Parts: sequence; structure tokens; C-alpha cells
Amino acid sequence: MELLSYLTMFVSVSVIGMMTTFIMFGMIARRAVTDTKVAKIGLLIRQGAMAFLRKEYTILLAVIAVAFVALTLVFNLLAAGAYVVGALSSMLAGFIGMRAATIANERTTMAAKDDGEYAAFLTALFGGSVMGFVVASLGLLGLGGLFYFFVGSGAENFIQLVTCYGLGASSIALFARVGGGIFTKAADVGADLVGKVEMGIPEDDPRNPAVIADNVGDCVGDTAGMGADIFESYVGSCIAAMVLAFEGHAGNLLYVSLPIVLSAIGLMGSVVGLLSVFVVRTKLSAMLHNATYVAIALFVAGAYKYIMYTGLEMALFYSVLLGGVSGVVVGLLTDYYTSGKPVRELAEASQSGAATNLIYGLALGYESIVFSVMALAGVIYLSFVYGGGLYGVSIAAVSMLATVGITMSVDAYGPIADNAGGFSEMAGLGSKVREITDRLDALGNTTAALGKGFAIGSAALASLAMFAAYCKTAGVAYLDLLNPVIISGLFIGGVMPYLISALTMRSVGSAAWKMVEEVRRQFKEIPGLMEGKAEADYERCIQISTTAALKEMFLPAMLTILSPIAVRLIFGASGKEALGGFLAGATLSGILLALSMANGGGAWDNAKKYIEAGNFGGKGSEAHKAAVVGDTVGDPFKDTSGPSLNILIKLMSIISLLIATL
Amino acid sequence: MELLSYLTMFVSVSVIGMMTTFIMFGMIARRAVTDTKVAKIGLLIRQGAMAFLRKEYTILLAVIAVAFVALTLVFNLLAAGAYVVGALSSMLAGFIGMRAATIANERTTMAAKDDGEYAAFLTALFGGSVMGFVVASLGLLGLGGLFYFFVGSGAENFIQLVTCYGLGASSIALFARVGGGIFTKAADVGADLVGKVEMGIPEDDPRNPAVIADNVGDCVGDTAGMGADIFESYVGSCIAAMVLAFEGHAGNLLYVSLPIVLSAIGLMGSVVGLLSVFVVRTKLSAMLHNATYVAIALFVAGAYKYIMYTGLEMALFYSVLLGGVSGVVVGLLTDYYTSGKPVRELAEASQSGAATNLIYGLALGYESIVFSVMALAGVIYLSFVYGGGLYGVSIAAVSMLATVGITMSVDAYGPIADNAGGFSEMAGLGSKVREITDRLDALGNTTAALGKGFAIGSAALASLAMFAAYCKTAGVAYLDLLNPVIISGLFIGGVMPYLISALTMRSVGSAAWKMVEEVRRQFKEIPGLMEGKAEADYERCIQISTTAALKEMFLPAMLTILSPIAVRLIFGASGKEALGGFLAGATLSGILLALSMANGGGAWDNAKKYIEAGNFGGKGSEAHKAAVVGDTVGDPFKDTSGPSLNILIKLMSIISLLIATL
Repeated sequence: MELLSYLTMFVSVSVIGMMTTFIMFGMIARRAVTDTKVAKIGLLIRQGAMAFLRKEYTILLAVIAVAFVALTLVFNLLAAGAYVVGALSSMLAGFIGMRAATIANERTTMAAKDDGEYAAFLTALFGGSVMGFVVASLGLLGLGGLFYFFVGSGAENFIQLVTCYGLGASSIALFARVGGGIFTKAADVGADLVGKVEMGIPEDDPRNPAVIADNVGDCVGDTAGMGADIFESYVGSCIAAMVLAFEGHAGNLLYVSLPIVLSAIGLMGSVVGLLSVFVVRTKLSAMLHNATYVAIALFVAGAYKYIMYTGLEMALFYSVLLGGVSGVVVGLLTDYYTSGKPVRELAEASQSGAATNLIYGLALGYESIVFSVMALAGVIYLSFVYGGGLYGVSIAAVSMLATVGITMSVDAYGPIADNAGGFSEMAGLGSKVREITDRLDALGNTTAALGKGFAIGSAALASLAMFAAYCKTAGVAYLDLLNPVIISGLFIGGVMPYLISALTMRSVGSAAWKMVEEVRRQFKEIPGLMEGKAEADYERCIQISTTAALKEMFLPAMLTILSPIAVRLIFGASGKEALGGFLAGATLSGILLALSMANGGGAWDNAKKYIEAGNFGGKGSEAHKAAVVGDTVGDPFKDTSGPSLNILIKLMSIISLLIATL
Repeated sequence: MELLSYLTMFVSVSVIGMMTTFIMFGMIARRAVTDTKVAKIGLLIRQGAMAFLRKEYTILLAVIAVAFVALTLVFNLLAAGAYVVGALSSMLAGFIGMRAATIANERTTMAAKDDGEYAAFLTALFGGSVMGFVVASLGLLGLGGLFYFFVGSGAENFIQLVTCYGLGASSIALFARVGGGIFTKAADVGADLVGKVEMGIPEDDPRNPAVIADNVGDCVGDTAGMGADIFESYVGSCIAAMVLAFEGHAGNLLYVSLPIVLSAIGLMGSVVGLLSVFVVRTKLSAMLHNATYVAIALFVAGAYKYIMYTGLEMALFYSVLLGGVSGVVVGLLTDYYTSGKPVRELAEASQSGAATNLIYGLALGYESIVFSVMALAGVIYLSFVYGGGLYGVSIAAVSMLATVGITMSVDAYGPIADNAGGFSEMAGLGSKVREITDRLDALGNTTAALGKGFAIGSAALASLAMFAAYCKTAGVAYLDLLNPVIISGLFIGGVMPYLISALTMRSVGSAAWKMVEEVRRQFKEIPGLMEGKAEADYERCIQISTTAALKEMFLPAMLTILSPIAVRLIFGASGKEALGGFLAGATLSGILLALSMANGGGAWDNAKKYIEAGNFGGKGSEAHKAAVVGDTVGDPFKDTSGPSLNILIKLMSIISLLIATL
């Protein structure tokens, strides 16, 4: 194919994706919000989220400006420009997705009230799909454009440009994930500690001053943060594959373009998958699963056609298949550990108190990673041996993420359904509406596991591919584990995820503590608040989360960015090798920790919900109190520290890759 | 030197060590136990401990018998014999040390009552020193004997023999650590959950039916388990160094014998260090520290003399120095994180409840490993580059453990002082005695950190040295981290510590749950128990811990033993390389997890004690309740799962090494 044909393909698929985005956006926005309470709460949340995002983005723009100058000096203006495009794309994806989520929240509630379950389900799903498709379309456009304009400008230059583009996406993702994660969990933990534990009022009760901040947090953390996160995984895995195509296949355009082509095929499959919910109407949970499976099946079939058509080796198709299938496998394992038998055992163990709940929950998180990581090890091995070497491994990573449009839609559906429940509670819409939103929420918890599986699995494969790309680019022929320089690097890299986890968890802890004090103060000083006669000062709580998030996101992010550079410099002549060991250590320890945190946190959350459903004494029982403690500890695990590590391992790799191009 | 001179040296130093052991044993045993209540409780604990050990050892003898047959078939009778000697030595060390501890407990209490603080201090220290010196003497004797009789029988044969000897020590250590760890924490957690949390009675209260089981647990877990653990580290690091001496120095006897000679010098230094407490009488805490520093200084000086005298290269002395100094550094870091400012912050955070205490404690554990692991990375790098290559790294490991006689004495002092407090409480000896034992206990908490630093640091270095020895012996010239076989191995190895932690933590959780039910039952069914008029059925509680420990120790131990063999076989032709990656992954992830668990657990324990000392509301406050939850979660962290991982990484290496000799 000629370059122009590629561009035509990428742009048209991207446009189809964008159109899908806008249609979905339009479909949710056209629903009228007739309930004044819902409208008022919606406005509060939107305002809070926008206020936070405005401040956060102001800071990020300053970061981008500094990075632009630095990259111009170290590399050149073009590279710095690519960085800015990557960074702004990430911010844009996060912004649009979050905007859609804040609108979809209230509309889902209204749909549940006015038109029942199916309408509410579709509204939440379409709200989530905006995020999914904007990420896929923007990524495709950016990478496609870079490919068209610069692939002919020489391997070195092209690698540098796409890496800078990826760095833009990664660095913004880390800030957004850490900042959003601290915001949301400070509010959530703070709200729970006083509201549920001390005052005994239910979740999402409008009397709780932190309740709006909690909902804002869901938007800026779970949605905007996640969007930026997945965007960077998506482009990161493509970049690694393109770099390896230059190393292993001498820059043959068929190989260099393959990751972007696969992404395009996956996006088309995702569009069809999403449309399938209109065609086949069945049980809601089956519809969500079907949409994913349809997209994956179409993607695999399309990839097969393309590989046959272009005469690429069949081995690469095996990698495509491995990537697609293993994502589902990891997802199902995640599902089992976060909503299957282990969760019921965890709930049962809660009967002997918080300590037992904690011990079991931590053990569950540890155990849950065993098969997933072994599955990933299997994919790495098989896609290398049968799927075309290191390039094959990177193609497996790309394939896992190619259907990001739909997997991400399903994932983003969860927080929207969750928040819709909050709306119906806060606006007092009655138990019938609440029942609907509760069912939709429960649905989201199970299907989100599938999305998480893809996110974590792909992060592991993508960072490995990037690690390999680094070594090839840096001219490190092999990384001998018997070389103490590399062992030292491995150890230093291994502690980084622990350090970042410690910092982010403590940030959540201290911000939550401030939130607790503020909520206690309001209950004490605002007369009539507890009786529901006076209104809480929601603004102050939002302010506390905002300040904490913006202040505390810097240190973890800067440590992540600077540590690879420091290792490269400190080890002097053997810095290249030490950095290789460092990346391997950070990747291994990061994946293990991130996965166990994500699963443990999810299980604690669902164990609490299981008890709330009336098991082991139900709400208010000793078991429930213990489960609330576990859930609170799990919050920063699954929504702050764990996701931050996902980005950390990729960001470190991409920075190293960039250093290597120097 | 001739072989006979070596033997003379090893045997005489070992005899000096044994004599020290017996003198110490005699010094504590000759004190009369005049208080009948103390005598009765002491008898109960001794009987419980012996009953458990009898059952455990019966099982272990069966394990040894099976291993003997297997090793005879796969290797030969001699190798199987070496295994048995190693295994029995480990059991003997654990037994003698524990026996001394059970006697020293009550004598320390009596000394506090009859002769005051200094006498009690000495009794506890001497009790601990039995363990320290029996470990060092037995290890020296075993290794010295193997060296004398078999070093001339060819490299391959000798390596096989010492490895089998080490395997005996390691496999028993794992069983003892896991079994003892489950026993002690099931009792401890069970006793606390009902006693402190539900019934509101103090720690060590004789009305609590699990209180004797708790004290028995301290003996079989903290003392016997730890003795077997350190014994295997001690011989393991020597074995790795000897194997590397064959690889790097063609079996030159000066190099092969150096690790044993260093151990002998360290043992002499330890004897002098222990005696220093008679000579320089100052603040008790200073005396404990001085004893350690004197021993290390003498060891380093002696090693210098020996290296000069024999004309070995100066580089090896640098490794000796690095090993000695870095042990202290890691110990001081451990001390800071388990009793310094971070602990006070953790106590402060407890004010907002259990969840915050947990979040901060986990974060503390994660953060605490950063500098320690970096220090270890530095030692690895420096001892390789300046200290004689991989052999130098192994010499650093040996040096860290050479003064095990004294570091272990100080470490074992802790549980004895702790238990003495329990005795004075249970026997109702009044507040004056309790104050003395409390002070001695507090002292133990800080100085034990130093010992823990040595144990963990040396485990890391020893397993790395063993890992290198494996690669050399297996003929793996280099382990390329870019080879997906090795990456797969790295991932699979990385999850093993998580799996073992999950299993051991859940074992503690479920056994503690049974204990809780039994204690609740007794309080309900035994009339007058709560009022102190009736006696609890201690036996039943001991029984529960015993059954759980013996049943649950199998799976983790067998998984540890079989997984390296499985990896070697499953990966077929590339099994050697995969196993190398597997070991590296298990070592990295095991060290990170073990260290963070040990420090986190220690910090939770001390934060609780800090609050009990009257801070943040003192005993009975909300902060205290939260801290008790943290302490309970920390219990299996620091005394079951964490220590098990220390052994796991070495046992896996030694099994791999043994496979490689085939």
C-alpha cells in the first residue's frame, strides 16, 4: 500500500470513531432533565469537576510548557511539538470523556425514572462509550498522522517523534491518574469514615458534606483519569511495536504500519460491537459481554484477512489471537477474584472483625495474581516463539488494546451507573428508581472486571514491549542477570512501585483525614444538618480534595519521570545496562503490586456490597462494619496506587526509550 | 594451611562456641523458680511447646526419611546422608534454643522479682545467646567437617554434598518457620480478638484461654522457627561462596575455606562480644548494641589479619567490610521505620480509625524498603566491582552473618523478655516486676530490629550468591533479560512469594477464627471464668494451634520445594534458563515483599505500644482500638508470611543448585 492509502484508511476509520462519539454524546444530551433536584445536583457535580479540571489543566499546561522548552533544547522543535500533540490529545480525551460522564450520570437517573431499566442502561453505556471511542479515535488519528508525515524521515527521527508523542500522553496520564486518584479517594474515604462509620447515615446521603466531592471524584478520577490512562496504553503499545518493526524488520512499512492498522480494525469492530446492543436485545449483562465478544471476534477476523491479504507471516496472526484471547482470560480471572467465591469467603471472614477481613483481603489480592501473571507469562513466551519474536510480543499487546473502543465503553459504564444510584438517592427519587440503578451498578461491577483485565494485561505486555524497544534502541544486545550492575538496577527498579504506592496511599490518608475533620466540623457547626433541614457546605469539601490532589500529585510524578534519568547518569559507563535492569525490576514489581492492589480493592468493595445485600447480618452488623474498613483500605489500592503503577511502568519505559534515542 | 589445620581450627572454635552455649544454659538453669504460680505456668508452656515440637518433629522425620530415599535414588547414599545431617542439625539447633528459651522465660521473671533489672536482663540475654551460639557452633562444625572429609573428592561431588547438607537445613527451616509461624499467630490473633477487643481484658491475662497457647507460640515460632531460619541462612551463604570458589578460583583451598574461616572468626568475635556485657556495665540498651559492635569490629579486624596473613587479595577484605557495615546500616534503617518517627505518625493516624491506621501502616511498610534495598543494591554492586566479582558478593553475604552468634542472641533476647512480662502478669507478681519486664521488653523491640536487618539483608545477598552459584553450576553463561523464556520465568518466579504469602496469611486467618470460636465458647460455657474463679481449658487452645500448624504447613512448603523442579521440567530444553529467570523473579519479589511485611508488622506493633504508653488517648481509646486492628493484621505479616519468604528464596535457590549438579 502507498502511504496515502494508509492515511486515508486511518483518517476515515478515525472519523467513523469520532462520529460514533458525537452521536452517542448527542443521544444522551438530548434527554431532558426534568427533576429539579437532579438538575441541581448535576450542576453541582459538573461545576466541581470543571473547577478541578480547570486548575489541574492549568498546572498541566505549565508542565507541558516546561517540557516543550526542555525537549526543544535536548532534541528539536519537531520532537517537542510531537510531545505537545500527545499531551493535548490525552487531556482532550480525558476532558470529553469526563464531560460526557457528568452529563450521562443525571440522564441515566432520569431515564431510570421516566423510561425504566433498558433506557437507563443504554444511557449509561452510551455515556461510557464516548470515552471509549474518543480515546480510540484520537489515538488512531495521532499515530496515523505521525506515520504518514514522518515515517519517511529516517528511522531515528521517526522513533524519536513517536516516542515524544507517547511521552506526552504518558506524562499527562500519570498526573491525571495520581491527581484524580487522590481527589476521588480522599473524598470517598473521608465521606465514608464520618458518614457511614461515625454518623450512621447511608452512602450518597445528601446530608453528608463530602458527598458531592465524592461524586466529582468519580468523574475526575475514575473517568478522566482512566481515559488518560488507557489512551497512553493504547498509543504506548503501538509505539513499542513500531520501534521494534524498525529494529527487527528494517523499517518495512508493512510491519511499521501493522499496529496502527490493527487499531483501526479494532475500532471498526468496536463500533459494530456497540451497535450490537441495538440489534440483539437480551439480558443486560449478556449484552455488555456480547458487545465485547463481537468486537473481538470481528477484530480477529479482520486481522486475519489483512494479514492474508498483505502476505505478512501467519505467525503474526497467532500473536493477534493470543493478545485478544488472553485479555479475555485475564478479565475472567479478575472477575472471579473480585466477584466470585473468594469474595463470599471474604465476606464470611468479616464476621470475626476488621482484622480478619483485612488479612483475608490482602491474601486474596496476593493470590489473585497467580494465574493472571502466569497467563501473561504464557502469552509472552508463546507470542515470542510462535508469533514472530519480540515484535510478536508487541503485536499481542497491541491486539489486546485494539478493541479499546468497546472495552473502555463497558468499563466507563460502571462509574456512570454507580453515580446514577447516587443521584437517585440524593434527589430522593424513591426505591423503584434506586432499585434499577442498583441493578445497573451491580452489572457494572462484574463487567468492569473484564475491562480491568484488558487494562492491566495490556500494560504489562506494552511495558515489556517498550522495554525491549529500549534495549534495541540503546544498543544493549543482551541484559545479563548475572551482571551485578543489572542486578543493582533490578533491585532499585523493584522498589520504585513500592515508593510510589507509599506516597500515593499516604496522600490519600492525609487528605481523607482533612476531609474527616471538615465533615465533622460541619456536622457540629451547621445546625439542622443532621436532621436534613440545613444544607451542607459541599464547596469546602471539593476544595479540600482539589488542593490535596494538586499538591500531592507532583512528587510521585516527578520521581517516576526523573528516576530513570538518574539511574542512567549515576551508573556512568554502564548506565545503559543498569537502566535496562531498572526497567525490568520496576515492570515486574509494578505489575505484581498493581494487580494485587486492583483485585484486592475490588474484592473488598464487593464483599461489602455482598453483606449489604443481606448476608452475614447485612447492613449495620459487625460483619458489615468490618467490611467497611476493608473497603476503605481497598479504595486507594484499587483507584489510586494500583492504577498509578500501571502508568508508572510504561512511563519509565518510554522515558528510557527517549533517552536511548539521544 | 593443611586440611588438618583447618579442621583443628574449625573444631576448636566450634567447641568454644558449644561451651559458651552450655555455660549460658547452666547460668540460667541454676536459678531457682521459687514462685509456684510462675513454676506452674512455666510447666504448662514447656509442656505445650514440647508436645507441639514432638508432633512437628515426628512429621519432619518422616519428611527426612522420604527425602533420604529420594536423594539416595537420584544422587547417592553419601548425598542423602549429608541431607540428613543438615536437617538434623537444624532441628537440634531449634530444639536446644527453644528449650533454653522456655527455661529463660520464667527465670527472667524470677530474676526481676528477686534481684532486679540487671539480673533479669542478663538472664534474658543468656537465654537468647544459647540459640545464637548453638546455631553458629553447629553450622561451623557441619561445614568444617564436610570441608575436611570431602573437599578432596572432586569439585562436583563436594558441591553436591554441601548442597544436600544445605537443602536439609533449608527444608526443615521452611517447615519450622511456616508451622511455627501459623501456630504462634493463630494463638496470638485469636487471643487478642476475643480477649482485648471483645472482652476488654488485658494482654497476658490468665483468664484468656488462648494465653498459654500464645506463649507457647512465642517459643515454637519466634524462637525455634527463627533458629532454624538463621541456621539455614548461615550455612546457605557459606555454601554459595564455596561453590563460587570452585567456579571462579578453580577450587583453590584458600578460597573454598574462606567462608568457613570467616564464620569461625565471627564466632570468636561473638564470644568476646557477649562477654563484654560483664566487663563494660552501662545503659542496658547500650550494652546490647556494644556487644554487637564489639563482635563486628573484632570480626573485621580478624578477617583483615587473616587475609593479610594468607596473602589473599585485599579486594576480599572490602567485601568483608561491606557485608559487616551494610548489615548495621540495614538494621538501623529497620530500627528507624519500626520505632522512630514513622511509628509515631502511624499512631497519630490511628486517631481517625482502623482504616487510616491500615492505609498508613501499609504505606509505611512499602516506603521502609526503599533505602534498605538500595543499600543492598549498593553492596552487590560494590562488592562485585571492588570486592572480587561474584565470589566477593558471596563473601559479603557470609560476612553479614559471620557474627550470627551475637546478633542472634540479641534477637532471641526479645521474645524472652516479652514472655517474662507475660509471666509476671499471669502470676500476678505486681506492678514493680511488671515495670522491669516492660522495660526489658521495650529494649528488645529496638535491638531486635538490628538482628532483623542482618537476617533480611543476608537472606537477600545469600540467595543472590546462590543464584549465581546455580547459573555457574548449570552452565548458564548468561541470563538475557531480553529472552522471553527468561522473562516468563521471571514473571512466574515473581508470583511465588505472593502465592505463599496468601496461603500462610489465610492459614493464620482461619486458624485464628477457630481459636476465636473456642475462646468465645469457653467464656460462655465455663462458669466463673470471666470473674477469675474458674480456670480456662488452655489445652484445647494449644491443640487448635497445633493441628492448624501441622496441617497448613504442608502446601506452602511443598509448593516452594516443587516449583523450581516444575519450571525446570516444563520449559524443556530451555528449562535451565527459565529456572534462572524464575529464581531472579522470586528473589526480587520475595525480598521486597518480605521486607515490607516485616517492617510494616513491626511498626504496627510498636504504634500500638506507643498508644498504650499513654499517647493519643492511651489504652481503650478509639486510636488504641484502631491500632489493635493494625497490630493484628501485622502479626502474620511479620511473624508468618514475611519470615517464610526469607526462607523461600533461599530454599528455591538451593534446590535449583542441586538440580544443576545432576
